[in-house]
Amino acid sequence: MYDFGFVPFSEINITDGFWQYRQRLNADVSIPNVYKRFDETDRFKAIYPMWKAPFSKSHIFFDSDTAKWIEAAAYVLAKNRAEYPELERLCDDIIDRFAKRQAPNGYLNSFFQRYPLAPRFRARPLHELYCAGHIVEAAIAYDQATGKDKLLKVAKKYLDHIEKRFIIKQNTGFVTPGHEEIELALLKLFAYTGIEKYKKMAEHFVEKRGTVKERTYWNFNDNYDQHDKPVRELDSAEGHCVRAMYLYSAMADMARLNHDDELYVACERLFVDACKKSYVTGGIGSDFNGECFTSDYDLPNMTAYTESCAAIAFLMFCRRMQLIRNDIRYADMIERIMYNNLLSAVSLDGKAFFYENPLEIRQAELTRSNSVKKRPRFPSWERKEVFSCSCCPPNVNRQIASIADVCFTENEECLYLQQYISCEYAGIRVETNYPVDGKVRISATRIGKKLGIRIPSWCRDYSLVLNGTPLDLQSENGYIVFDAADEILIELELSMHPYYVYANPQCREDVGKVALMRGPVVYCMEAVDNGCLDDLAADMNGAFSECASDLFKLPVLTVKGCKSVDERPYSRDKFGFEPCDLVFIPYFGFANRGVSDMKVWIPHV
Amino acid sequence: MYDFGFVPFSEINITDGFWQYRQRLNADVSIPNVYKRFDETDRFKAIYPMWKAPFSKSHIFFDSDTAKWIEAAAYVLAKNRAEYPELERLCDDIIDRFAKRQAPNGYLNSFFQRYPLAPRFRARPLHELYCAGHIVEAAIAYDQATGKDKLLKVAKKYLDHIEKRFIIKQNTGFVTPGHEEIELALLKLFAYTGIEKYKKMAEHFVEKRGTVKERTYWNFNDNYDQHDKPVRELDSAEGHCVRAMYLYSAMADMARLNHDDELYVACERLFVDACKKSYVTGGIGSDFNGECFTSDYDLPNMTAYTESCAAIAFLMFCRRMQLIRNDIRYADMIERIMYNNLLSAVSLDGKAFFYENPLEIRQAELTRSNSVKKRPRFPSWERKEVFSCSCCPPNVNRQIASIADVCFTENEECLYLQQYISCEYAGIRVETNYPVDGKVRISATRIGKKLGIRIPSWCRDYSLVLNGTPLDLQSENGYIVFDAADEILIELELSMHPYYVYANPQCREDVGKVALMRGPVVYCMEAVDNGCLDDLAADMNGAFSECASDLFKLPVLTVKGCKSVDERPYSRDKFGFEPCDLVFIPYFGFANRGVSDMKVWIPHV
Repeated sequence: MYDFGFVPFSEINITDGFWQYRQRLNADVSIPNVYKRFDETDRFKAIYPMWKAPFSKSHIFFDSDTAKWIEAAAYVLAKNRAEYPELERLCDDIIDRFAKRQAPNGYLNSFFQRYPLAPRFRARPLHELYCAGHIVEAAIAYDQATGKDKLLKVAKKYLDHIEKRFIIKQNTGFVTPGHEEIELALLKLFAYTGIEKYKKMAEHFVEKRGTVKERTYWNFNDNYDQHDKPVRELDSAEGHCVRAMYLYSAMADMARLNHDDELYVACERLFVDACKKSYVTGGIGSDFNGECFTSDYDLPNMTAYTESCAAIAFLMFCRRMQLIRNDIRYADMIERIMYNNLLSAVSLDGKAFFYENPLEIRQAELTRSNSVKKRPRFPSWERKEVFSCSCCPPNVNRQIASIADVCFTENEECLYLQQYISCEYAGIRVETNYPVDGKVRISATRIGKKLGIRIPSWCRDYSLVLNGTPLDLQSENGYIVFDAADEILIELELSMHPYYVYANPQCREDVGKVALMRGPVVYCMEAVDNGCLDDLAADMNGAFSECASDLFKLPVLTVKGCKSVDERPYSRDKFGFEPCDLVFIPYFGFANRGVSDMKVWIPHV
Repeated sequence: MYDFGFVPFSEINITDGFWQYRQRLNADVSIPNVYKRFDETDRFKAIYPMWKAPFSKSHIFFDSDTAKWIEAAAYVLAKNRAEYPELERLCDDIIDRFAKRQAPNGYLNSFFQRYPLAPRFRARPLHELYCAGHIVEAAIAYDQATGKDKLLKVAKKYLDHIEKRFIIKQNTGFVTPGHEEIELALLKLFAYTGIEKYKKMAEHFVEKRGTVKERTYWNFNDNYDQHDKPVRELDSAEGHCVRAMYLYSAMADMARLNHDDELYVACERLFVDACKKSYVTGGIGSDFNGECFTSDYDLPNMTAYTESCAAIAFLMFCRRMQLIRNDIRYADMIERIMYNNLLSAVSLDGKAFFYENPLEIRQAELTRSNSVKKRPRFPSWERKEVFSCSCCPPNVNRQIASIADVCFTENEECLYLQQYISCEYAGIRVETNYPVDGKVRISATRIGKKLGIRIPSWCRDYSLVLNGTPLDLQSENGYIVFDAADEILIELELSMHPYYVYANPQCREDVGKVALMRGPVVYCMEAVDNGCLDDLAADMNGAFSECASDLFKLPVLTVKGCKSVDERPYSRDKFGFEPCDLVFIPYFGFANRGVSDMKVWIPHV
């Protein structure tokens, strides 16, 4: 524990395959398109002091949207600066605006400097420190990618001001932020600069939380923003999911940096609990109301909130946890999120985004009581190019651009290959088409330590060839460790045969149903392929066939299933079914061919 | 078809057993207690012109509550007049008030005569004709029970006024009632008096419905009160369930009286559709919002509306349908309702009532998002003695008092024993403890026609002895018909071994789950017996044991089941369970030992 090093994406070259395609789409289409939409919605103009616009056109989160976009662009520049001069120009321009906008005392918030709703740092729910945290993250990313430190200087100046107000003078209207984010940003800045002050500030915000009485939104309880008790006493994942996961991420970083067992134990407790509140897609947040965790195994499909940012934040927490302990549960959850809820958040053409990622669409629910005019609320069933509160699109941008962060962890003795992406890093070369197929070729050239490879928990069947010789090795706690003192070549093949998963019987919505997966990828049925989904069921013994798809970049599956042919509502006998074909597509690809009914969990016979 | 006679409860003597106990409780406790609560809430005082009370204490439905209470009391008097002189005195007193209250032109409504909210018969949603219908039903019942025709005269005078306004002069603000009821009451009065005019009036209200543009409540569509199309074109059960079933009941009566095939076919279509929208308890109405039918197989358990009045109205419709055609589906549904949703509506001590009869209680749902202050709406989890809109308690009273209406149907050739209740009627004697056990002894003394007995569709195993000789007879379409020209003795035994039922795979909430039944009685688990219900499941091969219960008057069942012992949310393997005992009680008896979590549908392994 505590001896793992983080291998940042900047040191890894993604060379081919599934993620290279996704990263190119992200850099070439998604990031420019988000810029365009942000520009059209005046997020960048808002930074100018002379901008004239009605109050209603502005938003307290604008700076965080903008900062996350800079961060995403910086991650692209970090790997391919020469190819994207226009991105760099746009970043420089925005950064200039921020620098000009910054008050002489260091304060910087385009919204509150324009509309002094409340004296600065007086109203806890208003996200000032959240926006500040994103500016810090963007500043680090841009400095690292380009060597340009203008935004970093702005950020540091702003942090000096924050330190003065919150820690030295303590003359603010609240003690800890209403939306966490600055904590993890400060720890990142500490790691980047080595300046102890930033770690101390992070510790202040983390440790003070829940020890003093503070205000939250009127409609929520104190656990909505995790200030109901001191963080070391938190024992279940509660409240607004993004807030929670950003806090837990900072806690995990603190635990690692300080070798703080008590804090790690709290993080582990929260991880275990969050897993019981996570969807099979890795999504978290069961309730629109509060965008929050509910109770264990409470995972409604149609009304799943499963915010894209929440899945990304959960991935961020897991990535930090696996730097403390090489536990396969963390890597498994990262993989579950990256191939499902993360990818579903963006359209296959790269242009549009989901804020919420439901696991079922049934349009008839809007009129299930057709005698009633009132329409119930469901998540949007179509991806949009921009939202009023547009946290998710640039969050997806930055996560995809830096996805290689999840590939490796290492300590003195061993380098662990955690996720299978075609890439090169420090003498290791990974070649794979994963998850299109399960073949992975790993060559290591005298890396000076052992090499551990992960056998994902979903995998029941794999073959291994070491330097041309088949091996019959069992994984230990999910990993197989090789001596890599000399040059070695590992040929791994994970079986990509589709399989059904069951839900815990306490998952009220999914009990008696199954979900189809192939490797780490959750599949779903759409009405566009299958017609009405209401009477279809899985035949657990049915055969599978695969068909390559240029649209999804993963095979479409045709499965022998069945169709209910009985009208009675109840019966002592099992109900009758007729065989039929079911067509499944990767979950992340749903809603790319128009609005269509969709299901992940289906009954089985 | 069309040749069946109705055998009214007044000609049948219930001699013993399950229903005699229930009828005594109804007459001795429930009806007096409803009187007391209605008196305390000024329903009877409201009929006096001189009553002084705030508007908010009155209700547009008051007269219907009162009339249904009179009807229930009259049914008690019809069988046991000598034993209940106080009931008769109370009825006479209320009837005097109604007679005094009636306007010289015949109009009678205690609410609108006091508070002229709208000119009379101008506002369609305000239930004037609904209240009138209940006064008609009460008047018939009281005249029949006591020979006193004071209320009948009042009712007839009111109907003359209604005929003048709605049919002759047509100078009302609407054409058909916003809440059906008067149609079936008019047909009942036609049957009682033979006066053709009342049938014509009923036909007018039924046939005009949906042919003219009329107003409904702002929040609902036209099918909320079934005026979206002419009744003969109705093809699915829609809208407010009580309204719907009262209309369908009148339609069935009209079809029978007029030998009207087209109308019967419409009724049959609606019956089939309503079955797909009915709970295993016979309840209907899936949505609180609109108290209405939703879509086929949409049967949420915790938020089931399943109003007591709606189940009773469905029973009324089925009873009328079986007078047209002896189809076992009608008798099966009557039995499902009478042993489940009807009985659950009243507490075991007879004092309190459910308006809604949910199939699941999970108190933790109130705080499933414990970070959110807002509490979701659930049905009441405790029975209450009176409601502001108190339609259900006196409806339960009148239905239980007249339950023997469901025992027989007959035509020239055959008398059909439809429901097994210890009773005597015209040379037939039925002795049984059903549904405590399945033994039924039926003796018939030269009844002059055949005798048909119903083998309920839930029953898979029964034995028959005719005049001492065992028979191996199969039922035909659910019935076994005997020659009863001579005296015969039939000894029937229906197996009362508990069994599980499955739900149609389209029942989204129940797929993958089972419900336990014993004979016609649905069982449920309560937390008071089982602790937390969340992780319990049925073992389809588990053994059953029975234990007699003085509280429920039916056995409590102990069943070998199992308990989930796995924390993972998802798995490729089926989840692990440990064996445990599950305790089931009759569904109708839930919530009689304090508020407790409860489940009808449970997962199975």
